[in-house]
Amino acid sequence: MKPCKQLELYYHDLLLEGGNDVANATSAAATNAAKLGNFKLGKLIIFDDPMTKDQNLHSPPVAKAQGFYFYTMKTDYSAWFAYTLIFNSTDYKGTLNIMGADLMNAETRDFSVVGGTGDFFMARGIATIITDNVLGLKYFRLKMNIKLYECESLIRCIALNATRLKVLTTLVLSRDDAANAASAADTNPAKARQLQSRHACRFQ
Amino acid sequence: MKPCKQLELYYHDLLLEGGNDVANATSAAATNAAKLGNFKLGKLIIFDDPMTKDQNLHSPPVAKAQGFYFYTMKTDYSAWFAYTLIFNSTDYKGTLNIMGADLMNAETRDFSVVGGTGDFFMARGIATIITDNVLGLKYFRLKMNIKLYECESLIRCIALNATRLKVLTTLVLSRDDAANAASAADTNPAKARQLQSRHACRFQ
Amino acid sequence: MKPCKQLELYYHDLLLEGGNDVANATSAAATNAAKLGNFKLGKLIIFDDPMTKDQNLHSPPVAKAQGFYFYTMKTDYSAWFAYTLIFNSTDYKGTLNIMGADLMNAETRDFSVVGGTGDFFMARGIATIITDNVLGLKYFRLKMNIKLYECESLIRCIALNATRLKVLTTLVLSRDDAANAASAADTNPAKARQLQSRHACRFQ
Repeated sequence: MKPCKQLELYYHDLLLEGGNDVANATSAAATNAAKLGNFKLGKLIIFDDPMTKDQNLHSPPVAKAQGFYFYTMKTDYSAWFAYTLIFNSTDYKGTLNIMGADLMNAETRDFSVVGGTGDFFMARGIATIITDNVLGLKYFRLKMNIKLYECESLIRCIALNATRLKVLTTLVLSRDDAANAASAADTNPAKARQLQSRHACRFQ
Repeated sequence: MKPCKQLELYYHDLLLEGGNDVANATSAAATNAAKLGNFKLGKLIIFDDPMTKDQNLHSPPVAKAQGFYFYTMKTDYSAWFAYTLIFNSTDYKGTLNIMGADLMNAETRDFSVVGGTGDFFMARGIATIITDNVLGLKYFRLKMNIKLYECESLIRCIALNATRLKVLTTLVLSRDDAANAASAADTNPAKARQLQSRHACRFQ
Repeated sequence: MKPCKQLELYYHDLLLEGGNDVANATSAAATNAAKLGNFKLGKLIIFDDPMTKDQNLHSPPVAKAQGFYFYTMKTDYSAWFAYTLIFNSTDYKGTLNIMGADLMNAETRDFSVVGGTGDFFMARGIATIITDNVLGLKYFRLKMNIKLYECESLIRCIALNATRLKVLTTLVLSRDDAANAASAADTNPAKARQLQSRHACRFQ
């Protein structure tokens, strides 16, 4: 299956409690870890993190990631994320809403892109996450490969297909049904040909 | 793109910590703000808020909004929401699940409607949010314009289109293929005409 | 509407604060209840819970449920859930992302399955929840009946339908349009028949 749109971005997180000062921290803990295991289970972090096109934290961000993650296992490091990517650049304006389990020990893990707005109207897809760098508690960087499989075109494609099918059915039926002559006038071969040439299904 | 269903509702939030008493508060803080900036980043609020058809807090609620928001920026007021609209009226029974970034300084902002149940079975869409009133920390009201672009009909439309297409293909092929005569008997013009008249695609 | 895939699983939650020790607890509170009512509103629990095929907590888990719930009402027990089912068995590898309101006093309640990855690529559906057992604060068990109405096949179905429609339209048009003879050669009845026999639409 080929995505209808793909973006590769880097997510940078600088935790206040990890040794950053207020000036450069991009996230902060809202709760302490619970007393269940030694892997921070229960610790909830709120973030407003920059997303860049390359690995450089100081590159101009093409989006912000606003949301939260929390640690979720007692026997190993593992987290759970929900966040919005907010785009406000010349390339894109709009948002993508994302959630999923971050099994940190897996080389790659997949989140669900569950919705989108603006230029990403009604999008759905998969965000594949790779840990790209970790500097203790102070900094980590994730590579996010965002693959959209439903772009706006999916609904338009279904709508266009429904119209195409209606026109074609009427055309075929009209040929052996004199009683249908009136509606056939609305659905002549020229109309069918015109609909055939329109492209609303990018995955074709 | 035209929504297949649209609802305009008002969301009313009365925070316990904002000066409401237990009797009339509809939400409460679960965490304190972190020490990152002066805009409450890290403060998490749990709510069970009434949704009304008009601006009046005391109008009979047509739904409840249950979920949470938290403040997410260090340089300005901004929040992130995830919640369920629970309908239990004569108009609708069922739920809509919604999430997104609330960039408070934007005049309008869009959340994703990521799923629905009951009368909103399998729904998706956009909820456009406008701040309608703020009385300090005590009360705020949001206008939520909920536009569904995928109603139940989307899946039914695809299913109906697939059946229509199968019938039509067999009909067309049967006309120049004697070997297909048996299946053609199942897919005569009458069947094609019958399928053509059914409406499962409301966005057509 | 018939699901394209269905799973019935049991969710087991053993809360540390409910009297379990670190060895057997599977969840822990991250916040205390707020002072709004007597039904724990504001209490947030992070969990990493086993999912089994039968009611026995000690059966080999077929998935893990990682996520959170919090209590959300001041007048009764009610919760709100968001979590990921993580499958890593011979049957399935991949995840399902789920969210919704848990109106505890209703016999059944429906969450939204908003996305999936791996074997559940792009899935959507409904998870129907039934409280199956409660032992005070120490243990509760939920039956989760997961019904997927959009499996991977939905997008493939639309794509296949679009291709079928294109081939059929060209075939029909070519019969009364000599100018179309070249493209008709690409879309002969054999090709239409071949597309007709492929099954990408499981809900048909």
